[in-house]
Amino acid sequence: MKSNSLTKPEKSLPFKWYYDQKIFQKEITKIFNDEWLYVCHISSIDKNHYRTLSVNNKNIVLIKNKLNDISVFYNTCSHRGSQIFDQKEGKVKSPIIICPYHQWSYELSSGKLLNTTSLKLKNFDKKKYSLQKVNFYIWKGLVFVNLNSKKKFNLQSTFQYYDKTIEKIDLENFVVGHVWKKNVLCNWKIYWENYSECLHCPNIHPELSDLVPLYQRRLVDIKDHPEWVILKKTNSHSKYHGGLKNGAETWSVDGSSQGQSIEDVQSELESRGQIYISTWPTMFLGIYGDHIRIVRLIPISSEEVELTAEWLFPKSTLSNSIYKMENVIDFGILVMNQDANISEVNQRGIYNLEKNSGVLMPEEYIIRDFHIYVRKKLKE
Amino acid sequence: MKSNSLTKPEKSLPFKWYYDQKIFQKEITKIFNDEWLYVCHISSIDKNHYRTLSVNNKNIVLIKNKLNDISVFYNTCSHRGSQIFDQKEGKVKSPIIICPYHQWSYELSSGKLLNTTSLKLKNFDKKKYSLQKVNFYIWKGLVFVNLNSKKKFNLQSTFQYYDKTIEKIDLENFVVGHVWKKNVLCNWKIYWENYSECLHCPNIHPELSDLVPLYQRRLVDIKDHPEWVILKKTNSHSKYHGGLKNGAETWSVDGSSQGQSIEDVQSELESRGQIYISTWPTMFLGIYGDHIRIVRLIPISSEEVELTAEWLFPKSTLSNSIYKMENVIDFGILVMNQDANISEVNQRGIYNLEKNSGVLMPEEYIIRDFHIYVRKKLKE
Amino acid sequence: MKSNSLTKPEKSLPFKWYYDQKIFQKEITKIFNDEWLYVCHISSIDKNHYRTLSVNNKNIVLIKNKLNDISVFYNTCSHRGSQIFDQKEGKVKSPIIICPYHQWSYELSSGKLLNTTSLKLKNFDKKKYSLQKVNFYIWKGLVFVNLNSKKKFNLQSTFQYYDKTIEKIDLENFVVGHVWKKNVLCNWKIYWENYSECLHCPNIHPELSDLVPLYQRRLVDIKDHPEWVILKKTNSHSKYHGGLKNGAETWSVDGSSQGQSIEDVQSELESRGQIYISTWPTMFLGIYGDHIRIVRLIPISSEEVELTAEWLFPKSTLSNSIYKMENVIDFGILVMNQDANISEVNQRGIYNLEKNSGVLMPEEYIIRDFHIYVRKKLKE
Repeated sequence: MKSNSLTKPEKSLPFKWYYDQKIFQKEITKIFNDEWLYVCHISSIDKNHYRTLSVNNKNIVLIKNKLNDISVFYNTCSHRGSQIFDQKEGKVKSPIIICPYHQWSYELSSGKLLNTTSLKLKNFDKKKYSLQKVNFYIWKGLVFVNLNSKKKFNLQSTFQYYDKTIEKIDLENFVVGHVWKKNVLCNWKIYWENYSECLHCPNIHPELSDLVPLYQRRLVDIKDHPEWVILKKTNSHSKYHGGLKNGAETWSVDGSSQGQSIEDVQSELESRGQIYISTWPTMFLGIYGDHIRIVRLIPISSEEVELTAEWLFPKSTLSNSIYKMENVIDFGILVMNQDANISEVNQRGIYNLEKNSGVLMPEEYIIRDFHIYVRKKLKE
Repeated sequence: MKSNSLTKPEKSLPFKWYYDQKIFQKEITKIFNDEWLYVCHISSIDKNHYRTLSVNNKNIVLIKNKLNDISVFYNTCSHRGSQIFDQKEGKVKSPIIICPYHQWSYELSSGKLLNTTSLKLKNFDKKKYSLQKVNFYIWKGLVFVNLNSKKKFNLQSTFQYYDKTIEKIDLENFVVGHVWKKNVLCNWKIYWENYSECLHCPNIHPELSDLVPLYQRRLVDIKDHPEWVILKKTNSHSKYHGGLKNGAETWSVDGSSQGQSIEDVQSELESRGQIYISTWPTMFLGIYGDHIRIVRLIPISSEEVELTAEWLFPKSTLSNSIYKMENVIDFGILVMNQDANISEVNQRGIYNLEKNSGVLMPEEYIIRDFHIYVRKKLKE
Repeated sequence: MKSNSLTKPEKSLPFKWYYDQKIFQKEITKIFNDEWLYVCHISSIDKNHYRTLSVNNKNIVLIKNKLNDISVFYNTCSHRGSQIFDQKEGKVKSPIIICPYHQWSYELSSGKLLNTTSLKLKNFDKKKYSLQKVNFYIWKGLVFVNLNSKKKFNLQSTFQYYDKTIEKIDLENFVVGHVWKKNVLCNWKIYWENYSECLHCPNIHPELSDLVPLYQRRLVDIKDHPEWVILKKTNSHSKYHGGLKNGAETWSVDGSSQGQSIEDVQSELESRGQIYISTWPTMFLGIYGDHIRIVRLIPISSEEVELTAEWLFPKSTLSNSIYKMENVIDFGILVMNQDANISEVNQRGIYNLEKNSGVLMPEEYIIRDFHIYVRKKLKE
């Protein structure tokens, strides 16, 4: 359940937490090495292909075999620690994984060591030298990993404000149409805070605030407006409409969805405009009229975060020759660049008042929840 | 009062102090966060303009309002720590400062919070959220800041070897004609040491040593020559003249001051050539025939220092259409580049003898005083 | 004496040791500041020339005077720590070394302080301010330094697997024909491990494995093959020949030595192909049909190592106008680049399994000895 507006000013996290190395190392250990981290949508790996990626300084490899099954391993040979897959992505040539250094071979699906290239050795127990598996879970086509091998995936605790609307969508059958990456020079928490409030919307996002009238009021939810219900009743025009502006169908440059739509959630979207689901510390997902956008956040250092955005569409939309993907991609990039810029401005001011904290205002209740989450995880 | 020549070899600071991170952090805390740091001459900010600058990793902003009054703040919004002024310098558009992130507004002169953009909040005491002021003092047009808010400006303790000659000059009415910046790859103390002796002059500064005959003798003060007084009496020619070489009027490429001069100190300059005033750890100032040059030193890291030189002139000089500023600027840059180069050479040698110290020779008594100052501050 | 094949799997060093900063600092202190480090062959410095180089963050200078005598000093003036020689190499213009900063002068051969440029100073004992000597030793034309001034050179303990064959060669009269440098992004121990086994040869070095048939079997020594002796007796063809492939004379692109040879060791080379001598942590040397190649390893950081390869030839070979040096140089560079690439791949995989160690296989007995050496030195 979403929280309500704050009723008193709340201390923000100490400014030092946005650059201090010890805090950052603690966050890696206690948060990023202990939570379900979003990797990518299943459609971004082809059959008989692999894909490597770096999370928390660890390089992992996702492999999809010919049966469409996924395996996830640390990308390291058990012999002397060599990296096995040297490219970002590529084709798997056989059902056997072979290390490029000394040609140790492993079974593709299980990671079991099949053979070494050495002379025979007594007391050498192959079973001890399998590739090391990474704990993963696929939920509705979304691949998550957890570097804590003992953690079990739990829907309710993984998503902060779970919204059942998503269950109506067959997300596993959507297809990634575009991927966009950007490194932002701010602490990962700064970007999350930016995502969690709309006080900045009118000035930072003029185009978006035009599309979503509620954002002109610096609000993210109609429940945050003290007299919304009354005003809506007595005013029929768009001013108190909670969704997109009149005539708009999706988050796109011209507001049009070009005849495409995510059908099962149209009635929900009509009144709400968009639906968000997020999972700290690495993913937020937005459902829009004709597409879904997923943004992944991976910290590169205490003062740099890597954004990866995926645009997902129903297969029928991508196969429609008239549909122009740019309409939604360009709009998403516009908004994300605006957020990236102001997040960097925020970061640059944070060093000056090192012993201080900021203050959270009524509309910043999601940030307050986020801070409670961070503090709690660091204490564990 | 200036000290006299050393009568025995003195141990220099340990070589490790010129790169050790712990020592550097201590210097930032005990010296740079506790002393009056030179910022710039008041004439370098226009009315209704601001100027930001970074000192010790803190970004501060100087604002001159329409009445020519100066305010100095940390460049950070009290809300969630955003940087407020994003440019190095610019125009202030209204008497209100507005943060670019969430449009919190502050009074230009006092820094008082005027308005937030949030819903009303009980217990929110605006007075607690003013911009944070920086302690500053303007002395004869020179702006100094102290990151220790409790320190009061004191003329005698701020300048190491105060010279009353400067009081004859209406420095507040001088104008900055040129600014030059250079980052030098050496510890800030290495540059100060270089500034504090002339043993290096004949080989490093051939042009300067030609202009100032005393420097050919590797001396900075005639009192340092054992038999100067006697020699001067019995020799009338320039060899024992303490000022500039015959015919020269100022520190310039051709020695000429092009008919301009700082009148009130001409008699002083005639016998002395130039007059120096310095304040550790950030400024030295030279008074020459027709101009004043101020050099500011700000450490960027343990092994990098940023130099900023300002050339100041009487207004009448700058408005004289015949006067060519290059004559003094080029000479100053020549000398400073020579010092920068040899300071980098000095730094590169410092790592080899890590457990050792150098040795100070008779002429290096100002360096000895400087080392006493550094040691004392670090012990405080 | 070389060890024999391992009879049980051995734990490799913890993966963390290949990037941890504390381990690296310990290695610098306990290993690199305490062992005989290879610098260069004596022929690479001309009479009346100097050469500077950086080892473990220390810059040292080797000077060869007009009598061909070598002196080695830390490249730092005793006055205030200035670097004295600013170029990588150059001519010595007089038998006196003069510091560029304040012109202190030192005797070229002894480093004794001759003169300062300061006024006379009581109690200033020149003898205390000599240039600081670096402990060095020249063995058969190879210059070694030890930053521990008390260590004495000992042939047996310096070379791990000393091979008396080298004593037949008048190495001091060889000449460096070519020098090649490359920085490799791996821990210095990774490169040593790579050098210490041939399990990787067939796949990483196809050309070399063609030249040296034993390497196709992933072995470095015929004694490592369980039934070699028997097989050799019963098979006369090259398959069980321990040296180069039939017709090949040296490690070169076409296998030819162009009529040149290191005569005194031809009979040894015929059966063994090449002869190796190495000294941890900085040098391995290979004797081939017509040349010697020496590779120096200097760590730049925990995850970067600088390789410097010298190709040495008998004077008569270099003065032979028909001999094309490229034939051996290109082959050496090919092999070293292959090793550099795979070493970087190895390094990239090492971060993933931070609490683990790799495992050593039978053929990796030299690596096991190397690990024993590293562990022992770190404990000292």
